[in-house]
Amino acid sequence: MINKEQTQNKTESSETKSTVDIFEESLIMHKNLKGKLRVRSKLEINTRHDLALAYTPGVARICETIAQDPASVYDLTIKNNTVAVVTDGSAVLGLGNIGPEAALPVMEGKCMLFREYAKIDAFPICLTTQDTQEIIETVRRIAPVFGGINLEDIAAPRCFEIETALQDLGIPVFHDDQHGTSITLLAALMNAAKLTGKRLSDLTVVINGAGAAGTAIAELLLGHGYPDTEAVKQVFICDRTGILSPDRPDISTLPAKRSLATLTNPGCKNGSLADALVGADVFVGVSSANCVTQAMVRTMNPDPFIFAMANPIPEIMPDDAKAAGAAVVGTGRSDFNNQINNVLIFPGIFRGAINARSATITPKMKVAAAKALAQSVRDITPEAVIPSVLDKDVSYQVAKAVEAAAGS
Amino acid sequence: MINKEQTQNKTESSETKSTVDIFEESLIMHKNLKGKLRVRSKLEINTRHDLALAYTPGVARICETIAQDPASVYDLTIKNNTVAVVTDGSAVLGLGNIGPEAALPVMEGKCMLFREYAKIDAFPICLTTQDTQEIIETVRRIAPVFGGINLEDIAAPRCFEIETALQDLGIPVFHDDQHGTSITLLAALMNAAKLTGKRLSDLTVVINGAGAAGTAIAELLLGHGYPDTEAVKQVFICDRTGILSPDRPDISTLPAKRSLATLTNPGCKNGSLADALVGADVFVGVSSANCVTQAMVRTMNPDPFIFAMANPIPEIMPDDAKAAGAAVVGTGRSDFNNQINNVLIFPGIFRGAINARSATITPKMKVAAAKALAQSVRDITPEAVIPSVLDKDVSYQVAKAVEAAAGS
Repeated sequence: MINKEQTQNKTESSETKSTVDIFEESLIMHKNLKGKLRVRSKLEINTRHDLALAYTPGVARICETIAQDPASVYDLTIKNNTVAVVTDGSAVLGLGNIGPEAALPVMEGKCMLFREYAKIDAFPICLTTQDTQEIIETVRRIAPVFGGINLEDIAAPRCFEIETALQDLGIPVFHDDQHGTSITLLAALMNAAKLTGKRLSDLTVVINGAGAAGTAIAELLLGHGYPDTEAVKQVFICDRTGILSPDRPDISTLPAKRSLATLTNPGCKNGSLADALVGADVFVGVSSANCVTQAMVRTMNPDPFIFAMANPIPEIMPDDAKAAGAAVVGTGRSDFNNQINNVLIFPGIFRGAINARSATITPKMKVAAAKALAQSVRDITPEAVIPSVLDKDVSYQVAKAVEAAAGS
Repeated sequence: MINKEQTQNKTESSETKSTVDIFEESLIMHKNLKGKLRVRSKLEINTRHDLALAYTPGVARICETIAQDPASVYDLTIKNNTVAVVTDGSAVLGLGNIGPEAALPVMEGKCMLFREYAKIDAFPICLTTQDTQEIIETVRRIAPVFGGINLEDIAAPRCFEIETALQDLGIPVFHDDQHGTSITLLAALMNAAKLTGKRLSDLTVVINGAGAAGTAIAELLLGHGYPDTEAVKQVFICDRTGILSPDRPDISTLPAKRSLATLTNPGCKNGSLADALVGADVFVGVSSANCVTQAMVRTMNPDPFIFAMANPIPEIMPDDAKAAGAAVVGTGRSDFNNQINNVLIFPGIFRGAINARSATITPKMKVAAAKALAQSVRDITPEAVIPSVLDKDVSYQVAKAVEAAAGS
């Protein structure tokens, strides 16, 4: 076990060591468990009568009921509480395109979190295809058992097309890497603004990382596709080459990035991440380790917010960001304050959508989730703009708000 | 609850009443349960350390291990103990083509039995397609999570092509409606022969029903594709039109039935089921209610065996068959002796194949399963040629034999 001193030690070298310890402990744990999920029967079968009720002949009555009234499948089967966690293994954690088998431990982990945080029965589906149309048609084919589809760790821009195409499926389809991240970040940003007396509409935000999460964050912060929300003033989004700009030479060959460049960057600014940060109020990192320096933070507007979410090593370490003037710092890591983690959102989103039997997760439901998450923090401080990932009650507050927003 | 008197009452009228009671009780039970399966986490998540081990960052180590050594997916994930129960909803119980949603209660029941009888984690996959090639490709696409595929309630002849095509998948693919039924029946037949001093190789068998189960029974009893097994003397197989015969006018348009007619019926006999039964030793019914009369049984050889497995009403009621001279009678029903039920076979087959990490379920494994099932009956009597479906220990005896046969 890692002791408390180790997990709270915030220097990078000891973190590296502690991560290695976690890795080895995790490997031993996984070898012992041989899988983190168990499919249980809700009933024991001990008598012929048990068999007759749960299986033949009694089950025939249940089949006939559903055949006559398709909606009753929600009242009589696992469809009412079951979510598929679907991946093609193409963008797993920070590991990239490792394939469906290697992705399975993450999907099992996700399913555990559905159970632990929202009492949802979730099951992993890892696909051997990375073809957009084949993924779409496979999800359609396996949909009957499920009450929702959580798309997971599918590379951009494929993930956008898949999620969009499946919105007519009749059950919620939600790409967590996009919206789980963007909604959690928005909640943290709302509370950081509240804490420091800033208004969202005054903020210039620089996002580093133009993949699934970066795109969804840009759209949500700008209110693009989200009616009646308070948008930030402006967003710049950078990839490894620099600021996305409509006149950047390579952009014309990248349709997803081109539309993102048009959506953001109102003045068609060109340059590096460092150039983008000059005069910005917020940094949002969904990129890679150590790409932001203290010097860069010092060029931002006073009291900036730094959300450095690269895993396991953030874009800038929290102590460094604070020393350079950051008013609020968040990361993706569990051993620092303000952990921006999707688990604060996706269980509650699905719990609420399933409770409402909503056919989709609408923009209003997403914004309601962000507000509920922000409001779940009673005493906002620089160290707590977002609740603890261990506070499972948050999921039910989010679920309640999402369910209420489903009808509107 | 149905009381003991009711379940043991063997007249048809009271059975009909009792089935209606079971139907209503089953409906109430299913409404209360809202699905018979639960996906649980094997771990509770209560601390940051728990999250770090089961999810990020610890899980990254597990992903990398599998990416480097694909076989380790069996040591580290649910693949080692998880079976998909796959249907297209085209041939569900006696209900026919009711579609994937209406089939789900049966698939959930099957998954329960996997858990209860063999400690296997089974999950239902109900497909929106009934196209042979689409079913095959969908199973291929979702295979990474699973250590085995149980095909269920898929109509003939589609089921044959699907099962055959998927034998190269690297995990066992087994159509239970074919082989679960045929192996259980063979075990019952072995014990009936032993009890009455008959030899399998002397027996003439008439099968009524030329679908998935009837075909598999014919092939297994004739040793077609099963090396080194004792075959019966001859098999006649009938459908609604009568005996399958190579020169029957309609046969040329039905490829699956044509090959079945060639495999069976050595003298090219033509006629009705009644004609086939004259001078036969065994009747095997996988057909429909009340199609065999006492007069027909009296035309069979002395002391015939009657396995009348139509559900819920057998081809002939046991008391009637006995009164007409049957030495051994079995049905598919739980309220009569000698219940021929797949649950005696499929959990043990998969438990054994998974334990052996066998890539397929070979003919030798199937025959080993039949022998183990037959041998699990210590005191063979006319009322007990097959064990009780409630004897879960049988599955482990079957599993042991199947595992041992996997290597050979």
